[in-house]
Amino acid sequence: MKSGELKMSWARQYMPVLGEIRKRFEAEKPFKGNRIGMALHVEAKTAVLVETLAAGGAEVYITGCNPLSTQDDVAEALNDVPGVKCYAKRACSVEEYYDAIDKVLDVRPTVTIDDGMDLIHRLHTERRELLDGIIGGCEETTTGIHRLRAMAAEGKLEFPVIAVNDTPMKRFFDNVHGTGESALSSVMITTNTLIGGKWFVVAGYGYCGRGLAKMAHGLGAKVIVTEIDPRRALEAHMDGYFVMTMEEAAKIGDIFVTTTGNTSIITEKHFRVMKDGAILSNAGHFNVEIDLEWLHANKEGYEARDSIETFIVNGKKINVLAEGRLVNLATTKGMGHPIEVMDLSFALQALCSEYILKEGAGLKGDVYDVPNGIDVEVASLKLGSLGINIDALTEEQNLYMNSWDIGT
Amino acid sequence: MKSGELKMSWARQYMPVLGEIRKRFEAEKPFKGNRIGMALHVEAKTAVLVETLAAGGAEVYITGCNPLSTQDDVAEALNDVPGVKCYAKRACSVEEYYDAIDKVLDVRPTVTIDDGMDLIHRLHTERRELLDGIIGGCEETTTGIHRLRAMAAEGKLEFPVIAVNDTPMKRFFDNVHGTGESALSSVMITTNTLIGGKWFVVAGYGYCGRGLAKMAHGLGAKVIVTEIDPRRALEAHMDGYFVMTMEEAAKIGDIFVTTTGNTSIITEKHFRVMKDGAILSNAGHFNVEIDLEWLHANKEGYEARDSIETFIVNGKKINVLAEGRLVNLATTKGMGHPIEVMDLSFALQALCSEYILKEGAGLKGDVYDVPNGIDVEVASLKLGSLGINIDALTEEQNLYMNSWDIGT
Amino acid sequence: MKSGELKMSWARQYMPVLGEIRKRFEAEKPFKGNRIGMALHVEAKTAVLVETLAAGGAEVYITGCNPLSTQDDVAEALNDVPGVKCYAKRACSVEEYYDAIDKVLDVRPTVTIDDGMDLIHRLHTERRELLDGIIGGCEETTTGIHRLRAMAAEGKLEFPVIAVNDTPMKRFFDNVHGTGESALSSVMITTNTLIGGKWFVVAGYGYCGRGLAKMAHGLGAKVIVTEIDPRRALEAHMDGYFVMTMEEAAKIGDIFVTTTGNTSIITEKHFRVMKDGAILSNAGHFNVEIDLEWLHANKEGYEARDSIETFIVNGKKINVLAEGRLVNLATTKGMGHPIEVMDLSFALQALCSEYILKEGAGLKGDVYDVPNGIDVEVASLKLGSLGINIDALTEEQNLYMNSWDIGT
Amino acid sequence: MKSGELKMSWARQYMPVLGEIRKRFEAEKPFKGNRIGMALHVEAKTAVLVETLAAGGAEVYITGCNPLSTQDDVAEALNDVPGVKCYAKRACSVEEYYDAIDKVLDVRPTVTIDDGMDLIHRLHTERRELLDGIIGGCEETTTGIHRLRAMAAEGKLEFPVIAVNDTPMKRFFDNVHGTGESALSSVMITTNTLIGGKWFVVAGYGYCGRGLAKMAHGLGAKVIVTEIDPRRALEAHMDGYFVMTMEEAAKIGDIFVTTTGNTSIITEKHFRVMKDGAILSNAGHFNVEIDLEWLHANKEGYEARDSIETFIVNGKKINVLAEGRLVNLATTKGMGHPIEVMDLSFALQALCSEYILKEGAGLKGDVYDVPNGIDVEVASLKLGSLGINIDALTEEQNLYMNSWDIGT
Repeated sequence: MKSGELKMSWARQYMPVLGEIRKRFEAEKPFKGNRIGMALHVEAKTAVLVETLAAGGAEVYITGCNPLSTQDDVAEALNDVPGVKCYAKRACSVEEYYDAIDKVLDVRPTVTIDDGMDLIHRLHTERRELLDGIIGGCEETTTGIHRLRAMAAEGKLEFPVIAVNDTPMKRFFDNVHGTGESALSSVMITTNTLIGGKWFVVAGYGYCGRGLAKMAHGLGAKVIVTEIDPRRALEAHMDGYFVMTMEEAAKIGDIFVTTTGNTSIITEKHFRVMKDGAILSNAGHFNVEIDLEWLHANKEGYEARDSIETFIVNGKKINVLAEGRLVNLATTKGMGHPIEVMDLSFALQALCSEYILKEGAGLKGDVYDVPNGIDVEVASLKLGSLGINIDALTEEQNLYMNSWDIGT
Repeated sequence: MKSGELKMSWARQYMPVLGEIRKRFEAEKPFKGNRIGMALHVEAKTAVLVETLAAGGAEVYITGCNPLSTQDDVAEALNDVPGVKCYAKRACSVEEYYDAIDKVLDVRPTVTIDDGMDLIHRLHTERRELLDGIIGGCEETTTGIHRLRAMAAEGKLEFPVIAVNDTPMKRFFDNVHGTGESALSSVMITTNTLIGGKWFVVAGYGYCGRGLAKMAHGLGAKVIVTEIDPRRALEAHMDGYFVMTMEEAAKIGDIFVTTTGNTSIITEKHFRVMKDGAILSNAGHFNVEIDLEWLHANKEGYEARDSIETFIVNGKKINVLAEGRLVNLATTKGMGHPIEVMDLSFALQALCSEYILKEGAGLKGDVYDVPNGIDVEVASLKLGSLGINIDALTEEQNLYMNSWDIGT
Repeated sequence: MKSGELKMSWARQYMPVLGEIRKRFEAEKPFKGNRIGMALHVEAKTAVLVETLAAGGAEVYITGCNPLSTQDDVAEALNDVPGVKCYAKRACSVEEYYDAIDKVLDVRPTVTIDDGMDLIHRLHTERRELLDGIIGGCEETTTGIHRLRAMAAEGKLEFPVIAVNDTPMKRFFDNVHGTGESALSSVMITTNTLIGGKWFVVAGYGYCGRGLAKMAHGLGAKVIVTEIDPRRALEAHMDGYFVMTMEEAAKIGDIFVTTTGNTSIITEKHFRVMKDGAILSNAGHFNVEIDLEWLHANKEGYEARDSIETFIVNGKKINVLAEGRLVNLATTKGMGHPIEVMDLSFALQALCSEYILKEGAGLKGDVYDVPNGIDVEVASLKLGSLGINIDALTEEQNLYMNSWDIGT
Repeated sequence: MKSGELKMSWARQYMPVLGEIRKRFEAEKPFKGNRIGMALHVEAKTAVLVETLAAGGAEVYITGCNPLSTQDDVAEALNDVPGVKCYAKRACSVEEYYDAIDKVLDVRPTVTIDDGMDLIHRLHTERRELLDGIIGGCEETTTGIHRLRAMAAEGKLEFPVIAVNDTPMKRFFDNVHGTGESALSSVMITTNTLIGGKWFVVAGYGYCGRGLAKMAHGLGAKVIVTEIDPRRALEAHMDGYFVMTMEEAAKIGDIFVTTTGNTSIITEKHFRVMKDGAILSNAGHFNVEIDLEWLHANKEGYEARDSIETFIVNGKKINVLAEGRLVNLATTKGMGHPIEVMDLSFALQALCSEYILKEGAGLKGDVYDVPNGIDVEVASLKLGSLGINIDALTEEQNLYMNSWDIGT
């Protein structure tokens, strides 16, 4: 087996939900006669989604959504899958990047799957002649969805797009567990430091933050949470964590992870009071949570190691991981979200692609939520793959819940 | 100090939020010239609410909302508080119970506070002549709120009532922590059995259920969760618990706690397969979650102890706590919710009473949610009492959150 | 069923190890023809030990080891057990107390079981004429054992006594889990306060201390540990707790539990800096860990409630539970160690009684450890009662472990 | 800064205990005029030990103890440290390996530090002429110590050697936390799978096992423990884990980690019943815990990836990490023990080297334990570096502990 196929084979083992969907797709061929155009990170987990769609009868044309995230051996393996054509190449030039996107569009896809809206953007600008053939699309990321909503608000989105993001399943699995575990293991492996006994500062007590807090706590860290919302702050306090301002936390923290999705969370006034050897990383979204600009401009000294930059501030070392980018993805050893998490996210993608193909013709150009039924179906498929049975409401119970006279 | 005042003095120590509100009330006297009519459980924690309202300038007239929950020494102590008159008496007759309610109404209250809607019901039936003088009311329980919503739906609710229930603060504090800790300690003290190492079955993974699961887990139990919702089931699984049907759980569980709010959760088919010595209790709502009717009708033997009934089924002992009523309240040693929890719930009551007095005249007869600002204020007061400071959004951050072009 | 028998029947359900031993005893009658003289707390768990010994063919004569710990209904029920005679009476006078001890000795026991050495002491002083007939004894408590060792050191102990205490099983079960859970639930029920979010101070990180720390942590408390041993202190730190001196802890603690077995752990300098409303309790041994003498002599005010005394110091309330005595036993609602824990401790008693009867004649007057085989047997019986199977060393593995040449 | 120095500089940040020792060594120069000969893994953490010894006045001559563990950039950096000469080279031939050892010995060291006894062995065989000049040695590993004890037993060990291993500090830090965290993060990064919700099987509930169990549990895994000792098995059960035989565990486990130090823990009968996709790894000692010989001989199929081998058995995939070698060291991304752990282990080395130099002349050829005072000192230095103060026994308390008459 070649390297790319070995990687796909590994991922496939831990993607039972896509496996179940694939079985049904093979039988029902819901995409028969359709072309799916995709621009996603071309690596093993994505490849399993691609082959699932192909198994459903689709011709799949895929390129990358970031020049650096393509794994060439996986791209090669994808080209061996019947019905799939992959144009992605690692470290391609900007010209090659857009050239590949155009090649995907040239096949006149009926459905698009984006991670960052590059296909949809190209369709609405350079390739408007193709808009007519599109039934609908799916978008994976927050950022893409935000841009789509802006387009829709201006009446410029020409076909329906499902926001495959922010469903209960994604929040719980992707954020709490996916980010929690992968950010933690990336910090551990990159720095070779202990978590137990450390002051572990989590900025933001949203889904990502509470996942990280719980897991660092589970390894024996003393967890500090910073928040701007009083109720979330009180929740964190009651969950056994230390709630304080970042100014206070900056003085005692050993390891910092930002998860706010906001900007300027750790800035000059914090850097100046940090302990020697503090470790800073980001598991939120963009690389603006830690003020790297200030660090670069004001450092008294600088060392660069594999995925770690050390800035000397006030004579003390401040260590920033992965240039403030997502620590679970952007460190050399980071593997991104665990496979099982992507199994669920990509299961949503597969089922939403099927849905938009079936229902898209009747929908106007706008951004749509993942249908609740699909979210629940993915949960049920996952439970099924684990061999877990759950109770069902009896008629009597259903009646009771809807009629408050009984039992009172 | 007499017994009732000793109890109030104890509770006051752990009710800092009401303490803060009291200070403001004393300065501002928001209830000046008003009469508040109350029907609540007359015990120490309630008494601290009553004196807080009185400190705000209200004349407070209170009776019980359940003949068995009144503590006579607390009732006596309340009558020593200036501006307060208490009519409650433990173990009174039905006639005396309603007589006391009428005495409260006789003072022509301007605001009502109910736990179960007895005052409001009486006002809308026997005492309609008083409706005119009422500005608004507050209702504490789910059940009362349900009945009020039904009245409102039929257009029969004559004044505005705030549903002091189901706010984020109440869900998180009252359900997760209040029910979690008090149900667990009640089971421990009533049965004198270990939690560590036990199979601890929690029916329902809502707020009460996840509080209990987390705490039993924290003591070393192996927690089994039963659910009807696939997503909640998967959450429980990922949180490290065992998810299965009640039929499967019934065979291995040592201790069962129902928290569903539904009916017939543990029934004949479960009883028949239980282990000898199984312990069953309810922390949900009504005493219908465990099928006690069946047990009484079909038992092969029976023993009754303090807060424990033992039923012999298939030759094995099934032990039910507190007749299937709320285990944290209805066992002999149970103390109800921890004081700090009622501090928050009653702080909501105090602030909602103030709010309805100020705004009630402008509102039509209906059920209203707790204003979000009041919920947040209670969280902030609690953080303040703990000496916890949190961050505030900077202008730059606020701008960033509302303008997705920056940072992308 | 009468009250005493109901209590025994309850305890029996959760004492499977004694149950197993009883079956063997019934078949083998190891005590046939012997009289066992006992002085133990006469309550339900002890009663199950008594009936187990009686089932083994012993005549059992029992009285209390503390005038206040006898439960008269259990004493009555014991007198209904064939082969058992109980002389204990609650709240008896000192004269009656020793009279009862003499009645037990009058039967000329061959084996003694003590909790505090009252029988053995009486035998070696007032009743030396009976010494000849004694084969050996068992002693339950640290204190009794200490006094016995002192006697033995002076050559004055006339028969062999097994120290049924300080075995690995007792340390792990009795201290970590028994004290941990029962002290925690007693604090919760007695004070009606929350544990979640609290600063919970544990003095001493021995077995009792680490049990309590883990369980309070499991309920969401922030745990502070005080220690005098650097290695234990570092362990506590790495386990995720806060290690500091009691002087520092005194300023921030909400709830304090001492577990050191030493004296003067919380004293004037700590009282003076405590927060208003601090709760103090002891789960160590004697009531000398908290300096109650100072509190009584220097208080500015005082309130007494059920199992709680409040002392005003520097204008702030300091609340001491159970007069500084063992909080899991001495509070009104406290139930002592969970039943399952006493099942193991009393299983050790039962097997050690059998052992000393068989082997005692060949042993000189001294204090003996519990034979390791008996400790392991109790663990195995408990595992068996739980239906848990474990692996056994294979011959190959045994060889490997003893021969380091292989595999290197 | 060059690569090797960058690595040393990183490690130094998290080695405060060696840092403190270095300060004293610099002032006291305890090794002045002495030559230390070392054979250890030449990587950054070791290099900080080397420079600490050199700071103490020693001339340090070092080579590797394994041809593959040398990092050439660190070796180069060491040669820039005054007083240090490093002969190690990665991937050297056997001849070069022993040649380097001889070069170290050629300097006539007065103290030796070994990891695996290569220096001491060479001294006692090929280079006996140098034995005279040796005052004493230190040995880091279990294996080395075992061989030394065998030599000592035969009277063939010619100088005293301290077994820097198996002290309380090492057990607690190195095994519980060092192995626990690093094995877990290595499994996570190597496999990219989730831990939450998984059945995580830990073979052996010794120090390594309980560290791993606690940490996997802390991430949300359901932990299964296999044991051969009933008391440890019962501890694991009470700690909230599932205890069963490996035969039972094999059927349900998702991830297996062996920590027994024994052989043949997972063998044919287990492989045959495993789930598809099972992941197997070893964090014990040698690569004999998983029967790889059988897998290689009987596999139906085979795939090899980076640090993962997949064997098809009964049509299902069994994935073995790092060829069954220590998963935290032998996977490509594994970093070995966290830096803080090696700070403590190497602090023991530094202080034991000082000790043996001072005391060695008076000791006969034998293996000696680490003096308890040194173990405690390392704990105290670590607490000091964390800014943690602990209590000290007062005279009164000391008296109380030693005189049982007081307080009884």
